[in-house]
Amino acid sequence: MKIIEQKELGTPADVLTLKELPAQNPGAGEVKVKVLAAPIHPANLLQIAGQYATAPDLPSVPGGEGIGQVVALGEGVSHLQVGQHVFLAGVGGTWRDELIAPAASLIPAPPGDVEQLSMLAVNPLTAHLMLTQFADLNEGDWIIQSAANSAVGEMVIQLAALRGIKTVNVVRRESLLEDMKTLGGTVALVDGPDLVKDVAEATGGAPIKLAFDCVAGQTFERLAETLGYGGSIVSYGNLSGHLPQTNLMNLITKDVRMRGFWLAKWYETASAEDKQAALGTMVPLIASGQIKTKVDSRFSLEDIASAVTRAAASGREGKVLLMPR
Amino acid sequence: MKIIEQKELGTPADVLTLKELPAQNPGAGEVKVKVLAAPIHPANLLQIAGQYATAPDLPSVPGGEGIGQVVALGEGVSHLQVGQHVFLAGVGGTWRDELIAPAASLIPAPPGDVEQLSMLAVNPLTAHLMLTQFADLNEGDWIIQSAANSAVGEMVIQLAALRGIKTVNVVRRESLLEDMKTLGGTVALVDGPDLVKDVAEATGGAPIKLAFDCVAGQTFERLAETLGYGGSIVSYGNLSGHLPQTNLMNLITKDVRMRGFWLAKWYETASAEDKQAALGTMVPLIASGQIKTKVDSRFSLEDIASAVTRAAASGREGKVLLMPR
Repeated sequence: MKIIEQKELGTPADVLTLKELPAQNPGAGEVKVKVLAAPIHPANLLQIAGQYATAPDLPSVPGGEGIGQVVALGEGVSHLQVGQHVFLAGVGGTWRDELIAPAASLIPAPPGDVEQLSMLAVNPLTAHLMLTQFADLNEGDWIIQSAANSAVGEMVIQLAALRGIKTVNVVRRESLLEDMKTLGGTVALVDGPDLVKDVAEATGGAPIKLAFDCVAGQTFERLAETLGYGGSIVSYGNLSGHLPQTNLMNLITKDVRMRGFWLAKWYETASAEDKQAALGTMVPLIASGQIKTKVDSRFSLEDIASAVTRAAASGREGKVLLMPR
Repeated sequence: MKIIEQKELGTPADVLTLKELPAQNPGAGEVKVKVLAAPIHPANLLQIAGQYATAPDLPSVPGGEGIGQVVALGEGVSHLQVGQHVFLAGVGGTWRDELIAPAASLIPAPPGDVEQLSMLAVNPLTAHLMLTQFADLNEGDWIIQSAANSAVGEMVIQLAALRGIKTVNVVRRESLLEDMKTLGGTVALVDGPDLVKDVAEATGGAPIKLAFDCVAGQTFERLAETLGYGGSIVSYGNLSGHLPQTNLMNLITKDVRMRGFWLAKWYETASAEDKQAALGTMVPLIASGQIKTKVDSRFSLEDIASAVTRAAASGREGKVLLMPR
């Protein structure tokens, strides 16, 4: 069994090593799973570097999701079968070629596109939950988001388009605008000091009900300004590293609401029913290819240093996947 | 009929004048009311000076609330009687000795303490609504507030104490601490850089569910830091004039929620049932003397310049009331 191990915090390419462990067999109630694909997310890189909200208990195996195939069943496991695909979320580090997990922690996955399904449980689920937890959105409603070309952002565009929700998609570079429209975005704009005015012009002054921001700083401030009465802004990241100022007049006179979203906490606190419902909504959309996450490149576990370096590169066009075999 | 008139924006003592108008009689569906008492609120002074969220249509009569006595009924008015006391909220400027208002806009008031009832519809109602709209508070729960010695703050202390809700009361001066405890406050602390630590010590680290702030700037930031998981901070003013920074980590990892409250909007949008329910809760508490607003001084309409000067003075100990007769 091969695992990617982290023994200390630091630059991912420096502190991650491939380690060979003796093969293990599943105990009672456990299942042995072959990892087919596992994505590298920015949050993984931050956590490895010690720059995330929570630190790993070292030594640690990174990776928060993936798709696996059941290769052996422990005693007393009846609801899973050898050969079946399963989601690897909430089972510990997934950057490895095999793992042993409690059968109860594994949710069956359809046989569809392994790569797309391996990325379902983080970014698409974040987009789905943010689109459903903070506002009652109906066909024709407007939302706005920053970093619209991020994996979450592109998922928001596609999910919103399926529901007839109109999106204002804010990006940092002119060259990204066309892509946002191709994916189904209603409006695409480059961030800057005139953003609030540009948004009002592009939407005809329509009230915006919901904003998603992972840039922070002035971008967060501008998105909050664009909201209509009673609108909510949801923070789910801080790419710029700058804290925004709060225009309290928006809160007081426009009843603007400021919230945050953290998927890790959702996995910790959501009921089994809520999790099944969320996955149940997303699995058919992803398995059928109706919505997609772009893939930039694929690496073996042996190439972990190149993989994490590519995942941190600014020119990257989609997710970097680890494909253990 | 005497009114206090404002013809231009400016320092209240300079731009307010007493004006004598010919007596009027109520038309069909209207009522003539003698004003018994009307308070001077900081928001009135800000609005007169042109420093409030909304500007008055000039010329204008200031004053947002008070208690009046019905002195004449127009044709077709049957649910009010001459001699009866009524709340003067939402009827236009109350800084006058008489007014004519649609009977439907007047809510009957009990005959109890005229001064206390004249101040019910703004500060006590703000405290009541903030304590009920943003969190499900139970006996033993903790809340925190800045400017705890303000009229709203002292009302929050008393209303919370009646429900067994524990309060952390933050003030700017040591000399105010004792008063906060006497009113029923659980903990009283002086604001400063160590506030977050001081609060944790004083509460034994108990999770705080709700914060009310009207100071803004660093005080808002500190109050937000003291909140427990899922706690809300409600802004209802900006006494310091400084915008706070938003610690997005509180929003993301602690699910802290940032909101605002504006009573004017509530009066504009709440249903008649909601208004009756809110007043119905507060009237018996005020009329019975269970909760009280401090009164600093009383002035006639003729002394309006002294009245607004006193209302703006920093040493003031309670509300300034206009008592037209």
